Formats: sequence, C-alpha cells, structure tokens
Amino acid sequence: MSETKVLSSYVVSSRLENIPSDVIHESKRALLNWIGCAIGGSREPAVEIAVRALTPFSGERSARLLARSEQFDPLYASVINGISGHVFEYDDTTPMNYIHPTPPVASALFAYASANPTTGRDFLHAFVMGFEAESRVGNAVYPAHYEAGWHITATAGVFGAAAAIGKLLNLSTQQMIWAMGLAATQASGIREMFGSMAKSFHAGHAARNGYLSAVLAKSDFTAGVYGIESPRGFAHVLSSKYDLSKIAAGLGEDFQIRYNTYKPYPCGIVVQPTIDAAIDLHRQYHPAPDAIKAVRVRVAPLVLDLCNKRDLRQGLDSKYSIYHAAAIGLVRGKGGLQEFTDAAVADPALTKVRDLVTPVGDASITEDQSHIEVELTDGRKFSHFVEQSLGNIHRPLSDQQLEEKLRDQNAILPEAQVARVIDLCWRLDQLQDVNDLIRATIA
Amino acid sequence: MSETKVLSSYVVSSRLENIPSDVIHESKRALLNWIGCAIGGSREPAVEIAVRALTPFSGERSARLLARSEQFDPLYASVINGISGHVFEYDDTTPMNYIHPTPPVASALFAYASANPTTGRDFLHAFVMGFEAESRVGNAVYPAHYEAGWHITATAGVFGAAAAIGKLLNLSTQQMIWAMGLAATQASGIREMFGSMAKSFHAGHAARNGYLSAVLAKSDFTAGVYGIESPRGFAHVLSSKYDLSKIAAGLGEDFQIRYNTYKPYPCGIVVQPTIDAAIDLHRQYHPAPDAIKAVRVRVAPLVLDLCNKRDLRQGLDSKYSIYHAAAIGLVRGKGGLQEFTDAAVADPALTKVRDLVTPVGDASITEDQSHIEVELTDGRKFSHFVEQSLGNIHRPLSDQQLEEKLRDQNAILPEAQVARVIDLCWRLDQLQDVNDLIRATIA
Repeated sequence: MSETKVLSSYVVSSRLENIPSDVIHESKRALLNWIGCAIGGSREPAVEIAVRALTPFSGERSARLLARSEQFDPLYASVINGISGHVFEYDDTTPMNYIHPTPPVASALFAYASANPTTGRDFLHAFVMGFEAESRVGNAVYPAHYEAGWHITATAGVFGAAAAIGKLLNLSTQQMIWAMGLAATQASGIREMFGSMAKSFHAGHAARNGYLSAVLAKSDFTAGVYGIESPRGFAHVLSSKYDLSKIAAGLGEDFQIRYNTYKPYPCGIVVQPTIDAAIDLHRQYHPAPDAIKAVRVRVAPLVLDLCNKRDLRQGLDSKYSIYHAAAIGLVRGKGGLQEFTDAAVADPALTKVRDLVTPVGDASITEDQSHIEVELTDGRKFSHFVEQSLGNIHRPLSDQQLEEKLRDQNAILPEAQVARVIDLCWRLDQLQDVNDLIRATIA
Repeated sequence: MSETKVLSSYVVSSRLENIPSDVIHESKRALLNWIGCAIGGSREPAVEIAVRALTPFSGERSARLLARSEQFDPLYASVINGISGHVFEYDDTTPMNYIHPTPPVASALFAYASANPTTGRDFLHAFVMGFEAESRVGNAVYPAHYEAGWHITATAGVFGAAAAIGKLLNLSTQQMIWAMGLAATQASGIREMFGSMAKSFHAGHAARNGYLSAVLAKSDFTAGVYGIESPRGFAHVLSSKYDLSKIAAGLGEDFQIRYNTYKPYPCGIVVQPTIDAAIDLHRQYHPAPDAIKAVRVRVAPLVLDLCNKRDLRQGLDSKYSIYHAAAIGLVRGKGGLQEFTDAAVADPALTKVRDLVTPVGDASITEDQSHIEVELTDGRKFSHFVEQSLGNIHRPLSDQQLEEKLRDQNAILPEAQVARVIDLCWRLDQLQDVNDLIRATIA
C-alpha cells in the first residue's frame, strides 16, 4: 500500500456531500479565526517588507491579498497572506501535532479564489481536504519530526496547500500523487527561525510551494510517486520516527479539523496556560510589581524547549518567552496584542517581573496546564493551577469569542465592514464567489 | 564562533584580486561545461512543461533564459535555467560531497546578470563565492546528510545561490547572515524524486530560493542568525552527523572549485566508471549481445544505493541504472546522449544485456573504480578493471574535451554561434556585460 496514493485518491474522489455539517461549521470557525489574524497582522513590518521586496517579481496581478489593497499573482499572494496570518502567532493549532493548520492552506486558497471565481462550497471542500492532508502527514511524523527542529506548520503545511489547490484544479489521482511528491520535496522550515520574520514567511512559503506543486502537477510535471513513504521520502528523511498508519487511519470519517483549537493570546501556544494562570492571580490579588519577590512556574518540559527566551530584544521575541507570559498576566492581567509589542518588552514593570520568573519543566504537567506561584517581598505566597487552558479543545473559544477576537485585532476596517466579514464567514457555504469575502477584508 | 557569520563575513569582504588565477580558470571550465548542459537540456519535456506552467506567474520579463527565447522574471528564469542545466545529469560534481555545484549557483547568476548588467569579473567573483558557500555547507554535513536521502545539490545549493546573488546585491554582513538563514530554512529536496522531472526542478528551486533569500535580506527581512550551526539550524536538523569546522577550514585559500569534476557521460556520476570499463571491453572484444551469458560488475556500495534501477520505463530512469551503464558500454561502446533516451531503454539488445548484469557492492572498490567481468555463452570470460574513471579529478577532461562535450550536446545553435559561446566563456573575465554570453546561447 502506498500512503501517498491512498491520501491522493481520497482527496481526488472526496465529495462535498460526504463532509459532515459539524466539519463545515468548524471550517468556518477556523477561517473566521484566521481571517482575523490576517487582518490584524496585515500591517506588520514583515508584511510591508515582503510586499515591497516581492513586487518586482509578481506575475499578472490577478489575485487580491487579504486585508491589503495591493494585488499580486496568486503564488506571491499566497506568500503574503501567509505572513499576514501567521505573524501575530494568533492562528489556530492542532495540539496532536502542533501544526498551525489554517495558514498554509487558507493562504493559498484565498489567493487562488481571488483570481479564479470559486464558490463557497468548493472553497470549503478544498479547505477540508487540505486540512486533512497536512494533519495526517503531520500526525505521521509528530513528535520526532518537530522535536528535531522542523517547523511542522511549514513542512506539513505544504502538503495541505498542494491538496487544497489540487482539489480545485481537478487533478487526476496520478497528478495529485505528483503534487504530493513535489510538496514532499519542497518541505522545509527550521525552528532556528522562530522569533524572526522568517517564521511567518514559513507559512507563506509552504502555501506558495504547495500551490506551485499543484500547478506543476496539473501540467504533468512528474515527481517520485512515493513522496511520503519511500525510504527516500518525506517521513523517513525528515523524521527519525514515524507511523505511516496515521495517514489513512479513519480517513473520510475522523476529520482532523475537529481537533482544532484557537488561541486567546497572540503568542506561542504552549505559554497560553501560564498567561491564564497569571491572569487569574492578577484578578484575585492584584500584586504590585514592586511587591513581587519571586515567580515560580511549573510547566510541561516542551515549554522550556520552545519558549525559554529570557533575553528579549523586540516584541516578536516576547511571543516565545515563558518569562514574559507570566509577567504580562501578573502585571497587566491580560494578554492582548499590546502585551507583545516592542514597547511591552521595554516596559520597566514587565522587565522587572520577567527577571523574577523561574520556570521548571515538570513531566507530570501537560501542555494545557500551568502551575504558578508568586512570592511577595512581605513573605506571602499565592499559587494557582490551570488544568485546562482557555482555548484548548476541552474549553474552546465560542463562536462569539472568535468574533470578538477578530474585532479586537481589527485596526483597519470600519465596524460595519468587520460585521460584514464575520457575516460572510458564517455564510461561506452560500457564497457564489468567495471574492465577496476577500474584498470585504480590504479597507 | 558562529559559522554562519564567518562564512557570511568572508563572502561580503572577499575581493576579486584575492582569487587565484587557477580558480578563475576552473570557474570558466565549470561554466563552459554547464552552459553546454543547459544548451543540451533546453528542449527536454521537463523544461517545456515548466516554461508553459510558469509563464502565467512570471513577473516583469526582464531576464533571458539560457538557450531559449522566452523571457521571465529573474526568479523563474533561475528555476528554468536550473532544470535545463541539470536534466541531462551531465553537469559537474564535487566528489567530496556529491554536490552538482554549478547548477544552483549559475542558474541564479545568469538569471540575475541577464536582467542586471554585470561585468564578467563581478560574475566570476560571485560564482566563486557561491561555489565556496554551498561546498562548505555540503562538506560539513556530507555523507550522513546525503545518505539519509537528501539531494545535497538542492539543500546545499540554496546557500550557494544566496551567497552569489547576495554578493552581487552588495549585502551587508548582517544581511548576508539573514540570507544564509533564509537559505537554511528553504533547504529542501529528497532523493525519492530521482528519476522524475522533480529531480532537475531541485536545481532550479534551490537557485530561485537562494536568489529570493538574498532579495529578502537586502530589504532587511530578518531571519535566525545561526542558520547553519544552531541546535535548530540546518546542520543539526538535516543531518545526524556533521562537522562544522569544515565551514571555515582554509576559507579564502583552499578553494573548493579546485576539486570540481566533469562527467564524460550524461548519467549518474557513480556509474561512470562502469561505462568506462564496459567501453574498454567493447573496444577490445566486441562481444555480440547474443553471445553474452552473464555480466558481473563489482562497484562501490554507494553505487547500488544510488543506481540500482533495474526496471526501466523511460530514458530518465536509465541514468541511474548500473545495469544500463554496463549494457551500453558493452553493446554500443559509448555513453552519449543517445544511450539514455526512451528508445535506448526499449532497444532489444540493450534490454537483453541489462538483464544479464549482476552488480555487487564491494567496499574495497572506490567510487571512481569499477571491475567488470563478461562471461560468453561459449564459456570464455573477459574482465577489466578501471582504476580512475575518465573525468575524475586525477584524470580530468581537458579544456578541449570540455569544448567537444559542449559541441556534442548542441542541437539548436549554428556552429559559428557555438564557437562564439565557447570563446566568450574563455573570455568571461573580459566581458563588460555577461549578456553577450547569455545572448549567444539563444538560437
């Protein structure tokens, strides 16, 4: 059995009437959440620089960007959408593989749909296919692949973009197999880039390369046909351990988007429980920064692997800092976009409390949990344990909280237009042309 | 010490007057050899498909392709140059790391120079810098990286293209460090693609991504600054073993292009000694295909790892087949482009002899050697041992043989124009504008 072929055949032969309604609804939630991120991130320096640097290389400007007025060809539109939607670290996460699943797939799909009129139903179907492909490839190689230093959002995401665009291009099974091979051989993105602009580039790069894979395959550009499973294929080359049975297990029934989660705070997923816990302590005790003597945080060991940044130079760094996470919760009682700016990094009160934080990895604590203990200069101690962090799969953001999150991120659209974006997301399956939604995101 | 910084600083600060004349001459040989490959490969299906599929995505068509009349933006020109120049497997090889070093660097450089007037001296200098960067990154991770299944031409090549284009763009050291990081995080290409069009795409993809890395870095798009050496960087993530000291060892003195070799036959480098040996037997004994009972070939174990293809469906497959290598030498007494076509694969005499070949991996035989033994139906046996295969570093192709190789590959240019291409290659350091050479390759 070839897993590449099984996955490709499934994507090619899937019919929308076989996608359950809860999966469609979760897709809308994922897209609404991510469009909010793309609106929120669309004026960041990483986006502005990419727009400027890529402009001379754009082909026919047939594609609109999300939340920006410039137009690009669909491949570069995929790149820029990916940067916009990932740069704030506010996008979705599937905890079973730590992929941010929507950015690579949706970045490519919106770019495609803006240049090629696409119904909401076809768009949603392609999105679900992309989500399945990247999740299943990711499941097969997680955790060894991620622990080795790969940014799995990029390396698995390229399969998702290839599957989604390949579905809309009506690839044959043979062509989809080639597209998967071309995706496999373009899979890249390493964690050394975390904390730099290159991290958000990963999402766009994966989207663009997956899109390109489908375009090349549509023209019968051939690739190795065992791209995922062969001894020289993706799983073996990019992961010391893997379980290929996860590619096909429950395919067509156990939809991976059901495991999707949405962050309440715009930073690394694994520091969210600590912000939660610190906010709870803030609300209960309002400790003044000067009264704090020590902060001890017990977290899952992965947190220290991913977010042990102590020396922060800029806002971007602070998204991966367990020290900063505890400090903003304790000092400000919230974790909004303003808590992860250059100004927040330089804030004397936050700097002071950050330096008092001692994180400890504890294998008995899950990645949804955090235990925080604050010792005051007068000797008093408070502590709090978060068992299920807000936004995790057992305590998900509601549809309304997702709408609020989108509104909170908006700094570019009039209120009525934001309402229209939200409304169109919920009615996506009724749209004759997804361009209605794309145009609504542009000021 | 940061290896990324050492390498970046060297590339930024290098001055042409410090490049020895033998290095300049070897650069011309490498470029002449590779331009011949690009001319020869320029009408292959992989190139034709890529040109068609990529045309709608090209930006301003400011760059000429090598050997084709279409124009593209420089990034897609890099992709197509890479496919043209690698598709015949006739390009150069540095045996210490099995990189085909010229394709990723030269594909990007010619694309750049065709859109941005560049002197031959600056071009050659940038080429040497790119060659150094990719070779040294490759040296650091070879052989574990390659054995794991990475196509090192692509994964190391992206650093070469970034360094070369970065040199011409006058990046600062900080920008060059970012460019190296962006190259590191785009490094991709797996050996499952060998034998498909995706393999030659790798060379173009690496060229384009390296070029893009330099463009983004020039605009201050940031990346992780320890792209090569950090625990989440290229060497550690993409290789189970590595030796970072090879990045800086002898930098500025021990120029890696001195180890470059040029193939006499358009196929996998490791089957060349077997073709050599089989041709020798053909010349001496002229065995009729029907008279052959068995062929035994003893080769380095890597040969079986790379070129153990027995079931050939098309010409491309035959380039990686030790069976086919022995057969063409014995039956036809040569290994030219016509020996690796679909027709050659289907040739009954070659098919018959291929099926009689038994290859054996023998650790006492180097990758430059091959021992071949032919047993005839009448009981006679002949054998031959090649100790140094033609084209290896101890038995290099002469300048004149390189010229002949280029002429042999040409099917598109009038003879006088070929002579002009050759002449301009040898006079590259005197050219005011490399476009003179690029235009000479176009029919």
